[in-house]
Amino acid sequence: MLEASIVGCAGYTGQETLDRLLAHPELEPAALGSDSLVGRPASALDPRLDGELPAFVSNEEAAASGADVIFLCTDHAAAAAFEAPADAVVVDLSAAHRLRDTQVAQAWYGTAPGAWSYGLPELYPPEGRLIANPGCYATAALLALGPLADDIDGAVVDAKSGVSGAGRTLRQSSHAGAVLENLAPYAVGEHRHAPEIAEQLGFDVCFVPHLLPVRRGLLATCYVRHPGDARGALEDAYGSSRVVRVLPEGVDPELGRVQGTDTAEIAVYTDRATSTTIVVCAIDNLGKGAAGQAVQNANLVLGLDETAGLRLSGVLV
Amino acid sequence: MLEASIVGCAGYTGQETLDRLLAHPELEPAALGSDSLVGRPASALDPRLDGELPAFVSNEEAAASGADVIFLCTDHAAAAAFEAPADAVVVDLSAAHRLRDTQVAQAWYGTAPGAWSYGLPELYPPEGRLIANPGCYATAALLALGPLADDIDGAVVDAKSGVSGAGRTLRQSSHAGAVLENLAPYAVGEHRHAPEIAEQLGFDVCFVPHLLPVRRGLLATCYVRHPGDARGALEDAYGSSRVVRVLPEGVDPELGRVQGTDTAEIAVYTDRATSTTIVVCAIDNLGKGAAGQAVQNANLVLGLDETAGLRLSGVLV
Amino acid sequence: MLEASIVGCAGYTGQETLDRLLAHPELEPAALGSDSLVGRPASALDPRLDGELPAFVSNEEAAASGADVIFLCTDHAAAAAFEAPADAVVVDLSAAHRLRDTQVAQAWYGTAPGAWSYGLPELYPPEGRLIANPGCYATAALLALGPLADDIDGAVVDAKSGVSGAGRTLRQSSHAGAVLENLAPYAVGEHRHAPEIAEQLGFDVCFVPHLLPVRRGLLATCYVRHPGDARGALEDAYGSSRVVRVLPEGVDPELGRVQGTDTAEIAVYTDRATSTTIVVCAIDNLGKGAAGQAVQNANLVLGLDETAGLRLSGVLV
Amino acid sequence: MLEASIVGCAGYTGQETLDRLLAHPELEPAALGSDSLVGRPASALDPRLDGELPAFVSNEEAAASGADVIFLCTDHAAAAAFEAPADAVVVDLSAAHRLRDTQVAQAWYGTAPGAWSYGLPELYPPEGRLIANPGCYATAALLALGPLADDIDGAVVDAKSGVSGAGRTLRQSSHAGAVLENLAPYAVGEHRHAPEIAEQLGFDVCFVPHLLPVRRGLLATCYVRHPGDARGALEDAYGSSRVVRVLPEGVDPELGRVQGTDTAEIAVYTDRATSTTIVVCAIDNLGKGAAGQAVQNANLVLGLDETAGLRLSGVLV
Repeated sequence: MLEASIVGCAGYTGQETLDRLLAHPELEPAALGSDSLVGRPASALDPRLDGELPAFVSNEEAAASGADVIFLCTDHAAAAAFEAPADAVVVDLSAAHRLRDTQVAQAWYGTAPGAWSYGLPELYPPEGRLIANPGCYATAALLALGPLADDIDGAVVDAKSGVSGAGRTLRQSSHAGAVLENLAPYAVGEHRHAPEIAEQLGFDVCFVPHLLPVRRGLLATCYVRHPGDARGALEDAYGSSRVVRVLPEGVDPELGRVQGTDTAEIAVYTDRATSTTIVVCAIDNLGKGAAGQAVQNANLVLGLDETAGLRLSGVLV
Repeated sequence: MLEASIVGCAGYTGQETLDRLLAHPELEPAALGSDSLVGRPASALDPRLDGELPAFVSNEEAAASGADVIFLCTDHAAAAAFEAPADAVVVDLSAAHRLRDTQVAQAWYGTAPGAWSYGLPELYPPEGRLIANPGCYATAALLALGPLADDIDGAVVDAKSGVSGAGRTLRQSSHAGAVLENLAPYAVGEHRHAPEIAEQLGFDVCFVPHLLPVRRGLLATCYVRHPGDARGALEDAYGSSRVVRVLPEGVDPELGRVQGTDTAEIAVYTDRATSTTIVVCAIDNLGKGAAGQAVQNANLVLGLDETAGLRLSGVLV
Repeated sequence: MLEASIVGCAGYTGQETLDRLLAHPELEPAALGSDSLVGRPASALDPRLDGELPAFVSNEEAAASGADVIFLCTDHAAAAAFEAPADAVVVDLSAAHRLRDTQVAQAWYGTAPGAWSYGLPELYPPEGRLIANPGCYATAALLALGPLADDIDGAVVDAKSGVSGAGRTLRQSSHAGAVLENLAPYAVGEHRHAPEIAEQLGFDVCFVPHLLPVRRGLLATCYVRHPGDARGALEDAYGSSRVVRVLPEGVDPELGRVQGTDTAEIAVYTDRATSTTIVVCAIDNLGKGAAGQAVQNANLVLGLDETAGLRLSGVLV
Repeated sequence: MLEASIVGCAGYTGQETLDRLLAHPELEPAALGSDSLVGRPASALDPRLDGELPAFVSNEEAAASGADVIFLCTDHAAAAAFEAPADAVVVDLSAAHRLRDTQVAQAWYGTAPGAWSYGLPELYPPEGRLIANPGCYATAALLALGPLADDIDGAVVDAKSGVSGAGRTLRQSSHAGAVLENLAPYAVGEHRHAPEIAEQLGFDVCFVPHLLPVRRGLLATCYVRHPGDARGALEDAYGSSRVVRVLPEGVDPELGRVQGTDTAEIAVYTDRATSTTIVVCAIDNLGKGAAGQAVQNANLVLGLDETAGLRLSGVLV
């Protein structure tokens, strides 16, 4: 059994990473780090957690626990300041190490890219032991557009996400009174996931996120001019995947079917009037968009079964 | 006091039209038509309705009641078969008379356009006494794009609507189990509001609707290449309107602020990376997208105050 | 035209009180107080507010503006410290002056009752110029139980409220991630509205509130042993009311029908198996449960039409 | 590997039962019955289902497939008419065989109890090979009240359920427009789960269900006069359970924590003012309230691990 530590376990991505480890056959949670919960039992985070887990330690202590893999579930400032222990695999779920261009990284996050590889397994498999886990919006957009990138040179990405994408921190924009029975775009034309998508695709996209009145789930509707067989390209890319499913013609993707899972659904359409190719990708922002993908990346680097611990199956209504 | 009759009063658009008439200073509901509620009191539709309203009559009887204005709130087949009485103003809230091209109308609705004028007051004021009330999606897209139409030749319209846009009829897709905590695109690339938008703008648009887990409200995010001052064009178009508000820079439109009203909010942005112009319009699909606009059209044709009876003010949280 | 000032205008109850004043024929908002928005235009609170309103002033300045009526929309600590100007009518929407027993008031709020009258118009009309506006839960429970109080000596009150009842302040329990797709009881057996209800009824009740995943609205299901004609007693109490509606047999109350309004719906049932009398009351926690009732109280004390400015009509779907 | 067939697989409880079988180590779905989907692949029910499952057969054929266990997921009329094959274990998820008193069963369902045992494993373990699976409301109420039944003689049960409790059938009351942003009681004082609860407890309860605007989950708030140590009695009853968790003092139950699972959460409180004992139980109506419990019952009768196939773990946010 390999050991994992979670730094920043009390946030949404930390808790969800723990969720996957609890079901993992070869990776066990050995140290749970949270500066706000130090010394408290795991049940302080969630009453569903029982006494078999260790009590919380500081993030510093969790990082130094000698685990085989460290999941960094902090904000990007803390992640940028993190000094990775030699030998440990580190998966950074924050945005600190996602951008590769130094100027772009400085401009958006004030960080330097360093020696981290971007790990989106189906398209850009992780390399080395330091892995930058993609953003949730970037994951959905790249799953939709990556296999088409050679044949297109731009895209409109209209994305909609549940509120957990903004984390557990208290903000007026995450107050239930502002989210319930509402829908609004935000950070229009200037969201920091746009350069992340652009770096991987090799061209700029016009990206607009919207906040949905749901707890979890993300859907990206992508519009491109594609001259060839977009469906074929996507089916080729994901035909053997246990994580990403290209839906057959006539079946629309649904947020509800991927919520609580680490899977992705992709649908491909052609607009009757304008011949625009429309690719829609649905994921759970906390699953394939965060914790599920982090564990998937760790599995690959550690040589484990790629989907061990992931939430892949089931047909909840 | 002028008299109005509502044909098809038991559906969502019928009930909402009645709502506006109840607050109208110069137009009173004289005949409430509903084939399913004939002979029953108004309270059978909604217990908030009291005994001062007349009992329901058949749709045929409501149409022949001699009212000054008839609101047609039926499906498009019934509306196409409707024979308008001479002299009455008729506002058709269905899709039967919206399309102007005979072939297009036949292909989508099996109807002939006839002598109906398309009435979207801020852009295409109604003419004559037979008025085709725009579709909810078309209203939002046209409010966003109409003032820019001379300078653009295409658009992506990514729209999101609450479930009341699909009406009160029972369908699996309107079942709460399929709507709650979900989001899905539908009729991708082939929705019938697309040709309606295209006819008014003079060019095709790529239109994709999504079903939101909210009861009412609609937001259209429109992407165009616009060479000039899009904000200026929109502010010019709506500067004197009591119905449509162009938001100042830095304020995002919100569904929650227009729900239950007959107003529209419009925001204009420029994408940093691609210089795409993004225009977002939020309306209530049952308000400005249906009943509110119907009463606004009737007011104009009858020579009344344009916004009499409309729900325009208030700052509910 | 009489003048009103709002102290604490930036919170939910302040904004909703302003909403009613905007529609009031005889009372106009003369001073908008908010310590956080001093000097900013009304549109800083909500972009639907236009330039005809005065800019925000401090709460102190709003209180001293010489208005005919002051709406206190602060928390209870600020309200307790508030010194009412001579001659002005003051309606306190906080809990500071609701309890009449000195010991009880001290224990729950650390306040002294003073010379304030409890104003729930249909049951306990306001007297004098200092009015304590009832709590939202208390309003629903009292509307359901007040007319039966002489014949019962206890009650179970199971209440469910939308999140706006907890105000605009940021709390983990009001974070959308904790509210959406959830339901939970809170403050079980020790909510501060329980003594408020008990004081008015003359006996203790078992009161349990639950947080609903809706923005606004409150429903209280009350269980009592009533020996007589409970329906008759309720119909007698509210038969002439334009605000409270006792539903006919066979019609269930619905949150959706009172949301955004200042009305109340009451239904009466008898349990088949146990002969328990069940009275259910639905209100909007921000309407009849706060701002609507505050304006109603002010109208009564000022000698205006009781329902002027209130949101009473309409049949939104 | 034992074989299971599902009769009525296309409804909510059928689909959820299939979900559990897909994760079951010793029980595999051998025949999927659905009269509406005969001949179609499993993916016709849900695109997440792949080609390894058999195509749908008629319900009659599924029942006669020779499986070791049959899950009856039909309505109660079809279940009452069902002729159980000799030797097979049958778990009836409908209400047809839940009531034991012939007169009561006839009055509510028009059925005869027959030789079926009521199977709520923690309180009333199934006996024999014909098992009546409890109703969702009854499960929550009985888990809360069963361990206290010897010391009480009545209860108020105020229950709140997500819309999936009403099934996939189209009804106006399940239309999203009637469910979203709403809350309403229904079948007040005359719901058919009341006699089911009463038969097991030995006394009548006053039971009122409410429809919540959530897809799944159910919470029952129960009020009793209990003279002793209610918490102790509940902890004794469930201390060794892997399914039912009695929460420690200070932790409130939450619908969100049991959604999508087969677990239950129970909290116990004492009302400060009236000394009423309040027991709250949260379950997923489709999990512990239906399919999860059905598989749990089948496991017990077949001699398998009681919780095989159940969804018990995880800490999704």
